[in-house]
Amino acid sequence: MSTIYAGVDLGGTSFVAVVANNKGRVLGSSDSVTTPGASSEETLSQIGDHVLIAAKEAGVKMSKIKAIGIGAPGAVDLKRGIVVRAPNLGWTDVPLAGVLRKRLRTDVVLGNDVQVAILGEHAYGAAHGHDRVVGIWVGTGIGGGLIANGEIDRGFRGAAGEIGHMVIKEDGPECSCGRRGCVEALASRSAMERDVRAASTESAALTIMKERNKDRMTSSVIAHALEQNDAVMHDVVARAQHYLGLLAGNIVNLFDPEMIVIGGGVAQRLKESFVGPIADVARSRFLRPDPEHRIRIEHAKLGDYSGALGACALARQTI
Amino acid sequence: MSTIYAGVDLGGTSFVAVVANNKGRVLGSSDSVTTPGASSEETLSQIGDHVLIAAKEAGVKMSKIKAIGIGAPGAVDLKRGIVVRAPNLGWTDVPLAGVLRKRLRTDVVLGNDVQVAILGEHAYGAAHGHDRVVGIWVGTGIGGGLIANGEIDRGFRGAAGEIGHMVIKEDGPECSCGRRGCVEALASRSAMERDVRAASTESAALTIMKERNKDRMTSSVIAHALEQNDAVMHDVVARAQHYLGLLAGNIVNLFDPEMIVIGGGVAQRLKESFVGPIADVARSRFLRPDPEHRIRIEHAKLGDYSGALGACALARQTI
Repeated sequence: MSTIYAGVDLGGTSFVAVVANNKGRVLGSSDSVTTPGASSEETLSQIGDHVLIAAKEAGVKMSKIKAIGIGAPGAVDLKRGIVVRAPNLGWTDVPLAGVLRKRLRTDVVLGNDVQVAILGEHAYGAAHGHDRVVGIWVGTGIGGGLIANGEIDRGFRGAAGEIGHMVIKEDGPECSCGRRGCVEALASRSAMERDVRAASTESAALTIMKERNKDRMTSSVIAHALEQNDAVMHDVVARAQHYLGLLAGNIVNLFDPEMIVIGGGVAQRLKESFVGPIADVARSRFLRPDPEHRIRIEHAKLGDYSGALGACALARQTI
Repeated sequence: MSTIYAGVDLGGTSFVAVVANNKGRVLGSSDSVTTPGASSEETLSQIGDHVLIAAKEAGVKMSKIKAIGIGAPGAVDLKRGIVVRAPNLGWTDVPLAGVLRKRLRTDVVLGNDVQVAILGEHAYGAAHGHDRVVGIWVGTGIGGGLIANGEIDRGFRGAAGEIGHMVIKEDGPECSCGRRGCVEALASRSAMERDVRAASTESAALTIMKERNKDRMTSSVIAHALEQNDAVMHDVVARAQHYLGLLAGNIVNLFDPEMIVIGGGVAQRLKESFVGPIADVARSRFLRPDPEHRIRIEHAKLGDYSGALGACALARQTI
């Protein structure tokens, strides 16, 4: 019988818990939105409940789960298992690993959410079999992570992969980090939303948002506007693809990875139609040409489970 | 007695040969300009002569030299020891390692010139003791290289470190590679020369070039113009420093190295006055702040010997 792990992907507004075998097969899963305004204790209790639900669905006793991995957003102290600061959750210094370890009586390993999702794609998804990988995760912001020799390469200070703040257009729009020129301010979902709202012609995206009573332009809204052949959305997405292509080209010229995997909601929705044009721009920027496409540029394959399965892989690698 | 190595740093117009012990102490050296228009056989013969001269100066017999390292410009096939294409030398498919091995009866290891120079700084210079290093070499172009776990990290295809062609100003001037936005087109010595020539006021640099009968703006010309408080040169160098700072910031946000070492003629001449402002811009771009300056950003320390001592280090690591 194969070893069993649990993995939790904790986002700013929701989380996913899975129980999976060491081949990345999901045996049980449970997800939930986090309660807005809940204390960190309440949210941790909720996460614990859903790990138990996933284990039950998998037909696995907690005592048979070797370890639990968690990918958490914001600044995390991996060694001490603490979420130092997660603005989306309103958390400061939350001892996530310790609390869950105590309740579930299982080892808990903490990781950065984006790095963990990329590890998931490496262990079980698009990047399987590739030992030198960079992930580009496009969401509200743009995150990233490096895999080298098959493991998360965190860099000297644990800060490797902050690719959203690489400058590619020095005089570009102001970024959430307060600087200018970052790719996040040019190609994230927030940047796309800003550009849609600023367009001279109204986009179908705004109508869809109104219909769905959404105040944010989600990946699903973007996908539906494109399905309706919305010209504004088409232009905005094409521009983001151009900048993401420059970013990917920069990454290849510096790091020369075997593979770039592009994830996050938009990539997950649009798949090859999102990633193909990014890859074309990137390839046009490689100083050393790659006519045989030895470097693969592909979308993430694990869908909603990149993060949770990555957390399982992290637990497997660490414990 | 310590093991002895020879190292050759082959540039586009000149080369340096050293004989050094395994601590990087230069025991003998010899350098020469290459004869313009010479055949590759003639140049190889000349290189061989100067290795023998360096050995003689060191008081070491060739039979006591354990191996010879060579850093060569252009595209090199490291495994086969061949310079595939070096436009500056007019070389195509020159079996450099084989020819020297035959003549000098010693193992010869080939490397890329910039990567080898950075290895030199890691082994014996500014980056000694730092295992995760990125080098930025500013010359006619901008080259680079990565050190990870104390060795040259060549990447998947051997193309890691082509940092001169990272885009930092999408709509920037045209680059020698035919694209736009590369940092090489903004901050290399060639870019500085272009900007000096295009300035509305005449720069002292042009006068110095005339006096010295030079058709290129060398690092020495740049240094002398700055010493004369030439306002045009000051502005041009400040602009290059700004862009090199953005480049270094991008590198840190992606790769999170322990150290960035900045080399090449301009850095070698101007030292801290060149590197200090670059470091300031870079630090202002770190997404994860580094108030204690744990990441060091310094100029290369081995002067004219970075490449040749790096070649010795390469020979030591390989053989």
